[in-house]
Amino acid sequence: MKTGAAADIARPARGEAGSAATPHRLALRVYYEDTDFSGSVYHASYLRFLERGRTELLRALDIEHSKIFAAGGARGCHFVVRAMALEFLRPAFMDDLLSVETGIGRIGGASIEMRQAIRRGHEFLLTADVRIALVGGGRARRIPAQIADKLKAPPAWLAAVPPNFI
Amino acid sequence: MKTGAAADIARPARGEAGSAATPHRLALRVYYEDTDFSGSVYHASYLRFLERGRTELLRALDIEHSKIFAAGGARGCHFVVRAMALEFLRPAFMDDLLSVETGIGRIGGASIEMRQAIRRGHEFLLTADVRIALVGGGRARRIPAQIADKLKAPPAWLAAVPPNFI
Amino acid sequence: MKTGAAADIARPARGEAGSAATPHRLALRVYYEDTDFSGSVYHASYLRFLERGRTELLRALDIEHSKIFAAGGARGCHFVVRAMALEFLRPAFMDDLLSVETGIGRIGGASIEMRQAIRRGHEFLLTADVRIALVGGGRARRIPAQIADKLKAPPAWLAAVPPNFI
Amino acid sequence: MKTGAAADIARPARGEAGSAATPHRLALRVYYEDTDFSGSVYHASYLRFLERGRTELLRALDIEHSKIFAAGGARGCHFVVRAMALEFLRPAFMDDLLSVETGIGRIGGASIEMRQAIRRGHEFLLTADVRIALVGGGRARRIPAQIADKLKAPPAWLAAVPPNFI
Repeated sequence: MKTGAAADIARPARGEAGSAATPHRLALRVYYEDTDFSGSVYHASYLRFLERGRTELLRALDIEHSKIFAAGGARGCHFVVRAMALEFLRPAFMDDLLSVETGIGRIGGASIEMRQAIRRGHEFLLTADVRIALVGGGRARRIPAQIADKLKAPPAWLAAVPPNFI
Repeated sequence: MKTGAAADIARPARGEAGSAATPHRLALRVYYEDTDFSGSVYHASYLRFLERGRTELLRALDIEHSKIFAAGGARGCHFVVRAMALEFLRPAFMDDLLSVETGIGRIGGASIEMRQAIRRGHEFLLTADVRIALVGGGRARRIPAQIADKLKAPPAWLAAVPPNFI
Repeated sequence: MKTGAAADIARPARGEAGSAATPHRLALRVYYEDTDFSGSVYHASYLRFLERGRTELLRALDIEHSKIFAAGGARGCHFVVRAMALEFLRPAFMDDLLSVETGIGRIGGASIEMRQAIRRGHEFLLTADVRIALVGGGRARRIPAQIADKLKAPPAWLAAVPPNFI
Repeated sequence: MKTGAAADIARPARGEAGSAATPHRLALRVYYEDTDFSGSVYHASYLRFLERGRTELLRALDIEHSKIFAAGGARGCHFVVRAMALEFLRPAFMDDLLSVETGIGRIGGASIEMRQAIRRGHEFLLTADVRIALVGGGRARRIPAQIADKLKAPPAWLAAVPPNFI
C-alpha cells in the first residue's frame, strides 16, 4: 500500500467505475477531546475521524456495523482494519470544521480498500489508504455478496446528494 | 452520593471495616493522548485513569473483567458505572506521574461503592465517589458471593504489598 | 451538587429565566470509538458527548473556546470542569443516534453551572450536573461580563431554532 | 515507507549501529477504554500504545516532551507524526498484557524514523513504521544536535536494563 497524493482524491477521474471517483464526505467539528497539549489535534484522533467517515459511507449504502454484528450471531461479524498508510500533511486545531472524504477502492474477496482524506476547506490535512476485512469468530470471512455488490456499484446519488454532510 | 473531601482518603479511620482504610494504589504516567489543547489533562481522561485503578484493585483480588464476561456466557456479564460524583481540584500535566487510589466502600446486593482519588505526590488532583453494578443480558445482576466476599474482606497484604504499584 | 431527576430537564418550567428551561440539543451518532468490549458505550465517552454539547451551546451564543484561549494571550484562558455529578440510567449502543441536552444553570462570578442529559428518542440514558470555571495562567478567572451576560440572558431563538441540531 | 516484516524486529542484527537492533520495550495492560464493541482492541488505541512506547524510549534517553515544549518558549516545540505505515496482524483483547517495542531508525536533519511492534508474548499483533518531526511556531524545526546525538548513539544499557519495563 502506498499513500496516494491528495490530488488523487481532489480531482477524481469521474468516469472510472469502482475508483475513488465519488468520495463520500462527512463534516465534523474538532472538540477538546480531539486535541493534545501541543495545541493541535492528537494524531490518533484522525483515525477516529477516518473511521466515522467509513462508517457513514457504509451507512449511506445501508450497511450498518451493528446489524452486521448481530447477523453474525455468536460469531459477531465485524470489520477490522488490516493495514493503513497515513500521511499527516498539516495540523488541525480546536473548533476547526473538517471534512472526511472516503472513496471506495479495490473490493477483493476478503478485503475492501478505501482511500481517505481529511480536509479543512481546500487544504488537505491528511491522506490515508486503508484496507479492511470482515472477521467473525476470530477468523477472516468472505465479504458477503450483498455488501460487495453495493460497494462495487455505489448508487449515483451518493456523490450527488450526500445526506447530512457538507 | 456526595464527593468526599480528599482528607477522607488521605487520613482514613483505619479501624473501620469496609471503609477506604486500605486504598489500592496504581501509578500511571500522563501521555500526549491524555492532554488537551489547554495544556493540561482532558477531564474525561481522569475517568479512564479511575477505571484502570478499579480494574487493578479487582485484579489484585483475582477478579478479572474478561473472566467475568466469559463466565456470563451469552449474557456477557460486566460491571457498569451507575453513578459518579467528581471534584476536579488541580490540573495534571504532560509527563506527570500520578497515583490512582481506590478504596472499597459499601458492598450492596447489586452495587459496589468505591471512593477514589488521583494524586501527584502529596497533592490531590481529583476525588471521586463511584457506584458500580453488574449487568448481564441487559439486566442488573446480583453481585456473586465469591466477588462480594473478596471485596468485603480484602486481604491484609493489599495495602501492605501492592504488587507493581508505587 | 446533586444530580437532578431526568424529568427536570424533560418538563422544564419554561417561565424561569436562567433555568434549564431552554435546553440546547446536539445530535450525535455512536461510533466504534465510543464503545467498549461490553458491547455498549464506554462510560467516559459520555463525558466527551457532554462536552461537545456544552461547546455547541457556547458556540450558538458566539462563545468559542479557541477565541477565548487566544484572547487570554500568554495566559491561555480556557474553561475547566470543577465538579460533575453523573447518573448513568441506561446504556447506549453502536450506531445509536443520541441527543445531548444542555441547560444553563446558575451563573456565579467565577463559575457556571449546567444541567445536561443524554437521550435516545424519549429515553433518558444519563443526567449530569456540571460546574465549570474559567482558568488562565494557572489561576481561576472571573467570568468576563460579555460571556456571563450571554449566558444569563440566552436569546429566545436558542430553543426555537437550534441551528444544525435535532 | 514500507511496513517491515515483524521478523525484522524479532531477530535484529545486533551489530548494526543506529538500526532497530536494540528495541525499547514498554509493557502495558489493555483496559476497558482500549476496547470496542467487537470485543477486541479498537484500532486507533494501538496508536496511543505506540506513542507511549516512543515517549518512554525518549524518556529513557532523558528527552521529555514537556521539557522540549517549555524550551521552545512561545513557539512551543513538540514532536509530530508525519507518516505511519501500519499492519494489523492479530487482535488484542481485554486484560491482555502487551509489549510495545520501539527501535530507532534513520535520523535525518528534520525527521526521525522509528520501527515499532506490539506483541503479546511471542505473537506479533501489529507492526508500524513511523516518521516523526519537530515542529515549533507552526514550522518544521531542525532536530537539535543534543537530541539527534542521543538517538544516533543510544546507550548500551538501553536494551540491557530497561527500567520499569518487561
